Amino acid sequence: MYAFDKVRDFTNDVFLKMGCSASDAELATKVLVSADLRGIDSHGVARLIGYVRLWENGRINPTPDIKLVHETPSTGVVDGDAGLGLVVAPKAMEIVIEKAKKVGSGWISVKNSNHYGIAGYHAMMALEHDMIGMSMTNASPLVAPTFSTERMLGTNPIAVAIPADNQPPFVADFATTTAANGKLEILQRKGEEAPLGWIQDKEGHQTTNPHELKEGGALLPLGGDREHGSHKGFCLGSIVDIFSAVFSGANYGPWAPPFVSFLPMPENPVGEGLGHFFGAMRIDGFRPAQEFKSHMDTWIERFREAKNADDMPEVVIPGDPERLSEVERLKNGIPLNDKVVIDLKEVAKKFNLSF
Amino acid sequence: MYAFDKVRDFTNDVFLKMGCSASDAELATKVLVSADLRGIDSHGVARLIGYVRLWENGRINPTPDIKLVHETPSTGVVDGDAGLGLVVAPKAMEIVIEKAKKVGSGWISVKNSNHYGIAGYHAMMALEHDMIGMSMTNASPLVAPTFSTERMLGTNPIAVAIPADNQPPFVADFATTTAANGKLEILQRKGEEAPLGWIQDKEGHQTTNPHELKEGGALLPLGGDREHGSHKGFCLGSIVDIFSAVFSGANYGPWAPPFVSFLPMPENPVGEGLGHFFGAMRIDGFRPAQEFKSHMDTWIERFREAKNADDMPEVVIPGDPERLSEVERLKNGIPLNDKVVIDLKEVAKKFNLSF
Repeated sequence: MYAFDKVRDFTNDVFLKMGCSASDAELATKVLVSADLRGIDSHGVARLIGYVRLWENGRINPTPDIKLVHETPSTGVVDGDAGLGLVVAPKAMEIVIEKAKKVGSGWISVKNSNHYGIAGYHAMMALEHDMIGMSMTNASPLVAPTFSTERMLGTNPIAVAIPADNQPPFVADFATTTAANGKLEILQRKGEEAPLGWIQDKEGHQTTNPHELKEGGALLPLGGDREHGSHKGFCLGSIVDIFSAVFSGANYGPWAPPFVSFLPMPENPVGEGLGHFFGAMRIDGFRPAQEFKSHMDTWIERFREAKNADDMPEVVIPGDPERLSEVERLKNGIPLNDKVVIDLKEVAKKFNLSF
Repeated sequence: MYAFDKVRDFTNDVFLKMGCSASDAELATKVLVSADLRGIDSHGVARLIGYVRLWENGRINPTPDIKLVHETPSTGVVDGDAGLGLVVAPKAMEIVIEKAKKVGSGWISVKNSNHYGIAGYHAMMALEHDMIGMSMTNASPLVAPTFSTERMLGTNPIAVAIPADNQPPFVADFATTTAANGKLEILQRKGEEAPLGWIQDKEGHQTTNPHELKEGGALLPLGGDREHGSHKGFCLGSIVDIFSAVFSGANYGPWAPPFVSFLPMPENPVGEGLGHFFGAMRIDGFRPAQEFKSHMDTWIERFREAKNADDMPEVVIPGDPERLSEVERLKNGIPLNDKVVIDLKEVAKKFNLSF
């Protein structure tokens, strides 16, 4: 276990060493370590070395000029100027919230960005304003469309955060694949097999070997195969890709610049950097806020008490496990596996820091 | 095979007999039979008897006063006044498009409606305005959350229509379950088994018997089981339910008024009728329209040529099969199975019409 303060302060120091301003380093840190707090270990400090690698390759601009380059009262495009996605995303989300305050909803597509941490962080920024928040991003091409052997899409997550009254908010945050890449990385490290339906080998046959992904295989869209609806997962991943990158002028599909080190940069880019998409809708743009929130309480309470099957746990309200993790880890610290600790020590050495 | 004109004219006559105005009957007919043209047989005239049954039960108002009851420049709520969903939905979509023309995007949640035909019809209304269209609806509670035995959600479809330039538009339209209820109805009629992962029995165990749905079983969220991501399908179905019904003041979750005849009306309603949610975003709210559309061409062309696995068909661009079906069926007619023909003859007799 590592104390949360130690993990947070080290991360902040690394972003400062990369040349970020104090306020940007603080923001990037807050977004990145929110993943560790919320129990999404694949997206927290485990990725810090990845951001350092992008920076070393000249793909991160530590002092970006993030700006709105096109807009209507409710929509627009933000150019991230190759800044850290961890900084670009919350700044774009602020614009979305301002637009929603004025005209009921706001929708921003972002180009020229890169990995933005957990989708849920940004969506949740809307909650304190009594708004529903939405966040999505395209990502390293690792996912094959139904029937295909080519890696054409990222795990392209979707997050939606919805405020309630006495109940905690509903927060969905999920990859549009059967399993996120982070889960596969855990199996790879442990030397365990994946369930059928998560990945295919380079010929397009389902496999349980998690290492096949690096050998030309692919992650599968949510659904797994055609018979179980993988064409729907493919639709979802495609919609995220188009909203994030075709709307904004970022790279889409197989041209998305990869975060993972085992993929080369695609040739002949069709846009600038990676893309995101954010939205916010004022709940009182639809009905009085208090009325909405008390019905959300009823919704959550009714689903919480839905009868579970005899051999199954209780129904999980989206956001509950992450919220409980946050309380527990703030108190007891962050578990980091050995591989992550080795990576962080390497980062520390590079920047003359200690971890 | 039944000539399209015959099917369309009969449907129109039935809506007139129910007391709809000439223009409402024409609109409802156009929406309903678009499903038959597009090859989504479960949602076309096969459902006509279902609408008649709702009307007989006093659940359809043939002369509704459909109106906007709450709004901001980009958002609002429409009260469908218990009109046919087939009429309420396209009228709400028109409001959405008008809002998008003015402020870049429009978002309307609808209450006091009922079954609205195929989600895709409404989303596609945005295309001719160079807008992305979105459409979703809640539906008869037939789906159990992950781990649960209770039927808490509908198959809650999502449709997204995106314009391109020389390529046909991208049109995704899918239930947020592994398989739509219509597919199960086909297996029930044919006496065939369902794949594992589509349904569970009343104890919450997966089953291949499609009749279990009527015996207290449930459809499964996209993903099928927890290991294959059914919690993500549950999130999607929940988001559709909340956007459609908690935003608007319709009935949500297990209180959604059923369309299927084997479910009773839920007691103690929490809102009015069924809910829908519609959106439109102007593509030039993000970047010049021509630029967006030519990149959509590139997107579609690249995915169309993605290499398929040796033993698999080619990659399907969402909307392609339905578009081809439309051309073919306009020419060659609509195939109706015996059970549907019997139902239509019963409807004809009821209204002194002939089919």
